[in-house]
Amino acid sequence: MGHKRVYLDYNATTPLHPEVRKEMAEAMEMFGNPSSMHSYGREARANVEHARKTVAEFIGAHEDELVFVGSGSEANNTVLSLFACASNLCIPGFKGRQGIITTKIEHPCVLETSQCLMHRGSQVRLLDVDRYGRIDMEQLKEYLDDHIGLVSVMTANNEIGTIQEIREISRLAHEHGALMHTDAVQAVGKMPIDVNDLEVDFLTMSAHKIYGPKGIGALYVRKDTPYCPFIRGGHQERGRRAGTENTLGILGLARAVEMRRVEMDDEVRRLAEMKQVLKDGIAASIDEVEFNGHPEHSMSNTLNVSFPGAEGEAILLYLDLEGIAVSTGSACASGSLDPSHVLLATGSSAEQAHGSIRISMGRETTMDDIRYVLDVLPRVIEKIRNMSTAYVKGGAHAAAE
Amino acid sequence: MGHKRVYLDYNATTPLHPEVRKEMAEAMEMFGNPSSMHSYGREARANVEHARKTVAEFIGAHEDELVFVGSGSEANNTVLSLFACASNLCIPGFKGRQGIITTKIEHPCVLETSQCLMHRGSQVRLLDVDRYGRIDMEQLKEYLDDHIGLVSVMTANNEIGTIQEIREISRLAHEHGALMHTDAVQAVGKMPIDVNDLEVDFLTMSAHKIYGPKGIGALYVRKDTPYCPFIRGGHQERGRRAGTENTLGILGLARAVEMRRVEMDDEVRRLAEMKQVLKDGIAASIDEVEFNGHPEHSMSNTLNVSFPGAEGEAILLYLDLEGIAVSTGSACASGSLDPSHVLLATGSSAEQAHGSIRISMGRETTMDDIRYVLDVLPRVIEKIRNMSTAYVKGGAHAAAE
Repeated sequence: MGHKRVYLDYNATTPLHPEVRKEMAEAMEMFGNPSSMHSYGREARANVEHARKTVAEFIGAHEDELVFVGSGSEANNTVLSLFACASNLCIPGFKGRQGIITTKIEHPCVLETSQCLMHRGSQVRLLDVDRYGRIDMEQLKEYLDDHIGLVSVMTANNEIGTIQEIREISRLAHEHGALMHTDAVQAVGKMPIDVNDLEVDFLTMSAHKIYGPKGIGALYVRKDTPYCPFIRGGHQERGRRAGTENTLGILGLARAVEMRRVEMDDEVRRLAEMKQVLKDGIAASIDEVEFNGHPEHSMSNTLNVSFPGAEGEAILLYLDLEGIAVSTGSACASGSLDPSHVLLATGSSAEQAHGSIRISMGRETTMDDIRYVLDVLPRVIEKIRNMSTAYVKGGAHAAAE
Repeated sequence: MGHKRVYLDYNATTPLHPEVRKEMAEAMEMFGNPSSMHSYGREARANVEHARKTVAEFIGAHEDELVFVGSGSEANNTVLSLFACASNLCIPGFKGRQGIITTKIEHPCVLETSQCLMHRGSQVRLLDVDRYGRIDMEQLKEYLDDHIGLVSVMTANNEIGTIQEIREISRLAHEHGALMHTDAVQAVGKMPIDVNDLEVDFLTMSAHKIYGPKGIGALYVRKDTPYCPFIRGGHQERGRRAGTENTLGILGLARAVEMRRVEMDDEVRRLAEMKQVLKDGIAASIDEVEFNGHPEHSMSNTLNVSFPGAEGEAILLYLDLEGIAVSTGSACASGSLDPSHVLLATGSSAEQAHGSIRISMGRETTMDDIRYVLDVLPRVIEKIRNMSTAYVKGGAHAAAE
């Protein structure tokens, strides 16, 4: 494919930062098991603990409050599963508080785990969101009662970029004696995040969304918060997560965080500018478009847009042929042809949800890339809409399936 | 420390194979999310699936039967936790079969998870072992009844190297309608392992014990075996394990396996020879030693030996000063001063268990290393025994604590 390649799917995953790559290539020499008492082990231990401090400080946490895990999904499963334990008294003081409040637009790892807990007898209440993807605070107040042990609301939505009022939600949760968790996988490193500002008890983050490696994430657990390990056995992570530490991944995550500290602020400004150009350009060159997500409280890197009459999958594949990588909904749900649960929750019709794509930018995105998209996208949409019109007779979705 | 450094703790973890390091350095360029539909995603997907085939074939499995996970501990937790689900009907056909049989010498991630399941109402029976660490088949027959859903017995013990008769155990389990799991973390890549020869339904393996990276393992799940994901949400691994795939780790594991295929047989012969030299040398130069583990059915790389009157921790630290890295018990349990649960199960006294070290060799171990150990170890033991004699008055364990 002799043409330009433009990656605009940073919310799905990101390339390793060159500095992370360098760090990891060097760290491949170090191989000791951090649990070993000899010099090889102590070297690994020292490096892991240094990395823990770096990552913890980035989110305003103390190093003792950070548990390294294998992914954001594992971190989210860990927090929710506390409430399977709560029903069995592993967590003293939480007896009876098996209820969970979360939202209809969470990541599947939260929604499916919640569903599993429901099967095991926990009470789960799902908050609605408005057309911009913001939760309803009045409904939250209504749902909060003495049975609720946990409120889990994501900081920024992966599909539409909408940012929630986490601090306000935390306060309401705490007023009712519940713990507060936020899945901040899409937020950490893309906007300032401080666990004390947000007043959360648990926070989930992941390395591969911020130019670190896949297979490593971290869970913040506030000091003295009830906790019970999800992966058991072994004294690693102070007994909070068994399994030999992923030393290479941990060092990669720490380096990624260090680079975020340096690069984030300028990048956010740059991305916001490009997002505006992209949005204006799309609105000007394509008929009948609808932008999803909050117009204001939204991540600077994420633009979700619907093109009625065009299938998201078809748009994705045509753009791919032109070297442009975007997504429909989230990568985790791809393979499924169900319309996005996030867009449905914001009140989009199934057809509108099917016709949407997510463009997510990052540190290597240039204004030149945006211009290329603005050159290619109108042609692609026109082509697909023309085809769809022909296809409508045989069934609106035939083109993509 | 100007002197020689000799790493003899391969059962705790191993250095990356140079070929793995090369593979991973190259793979750092590839960053797509395997769940993404565009070209970046498809490239990652193709590489992950190729790796899956490589790893599956190495243990005689079909690629569809292999689930990539974050560690051996996660794999073991996954299998055991099926029986928390069984109690809640997630696994049709297993209603009522919540019982688990395992052994007293399993890895803590099996023992602690079993304990947690007990608290949740599952029945757990722990098999005794003989003085060599082999389970009692008669007791297994006695314990197997209609309530038992799973038998979980490790292939080779991490501390003493004893190998169990997995096929025979599988047959007994199946005769009684139970599923069979083996934790083969220490066995895969150190001896020929074939899931069909062993007749197991589940098998756990890990990359970092065979010169692959930490943070990646695999769980074999026989086709049509009842299963339920442990980390939920997301369609990754065909819905069997959520979380963006650790592409770098997966490629590293596959390359490690490829190298095992080439190097294992010769290495096993070489290690067996060195183990004999080491054993004979220790017996000849140090008084009152006791070798732990089976004299015959034992891994060629592992020698566990007790030196009554010398603390294992002290031996470890003195050897470390001489550049030699060994362990007491397993790395996962270090930090704890409890005597090894494995040695206690074989009938060792607490004192004997406290006075034992594990020497585990690997692909970079040379006869020269062994000679160095045989030069240093007798002096170290003598020194500690002399000190211990003085210390005994104040309390036998004071030296190490």
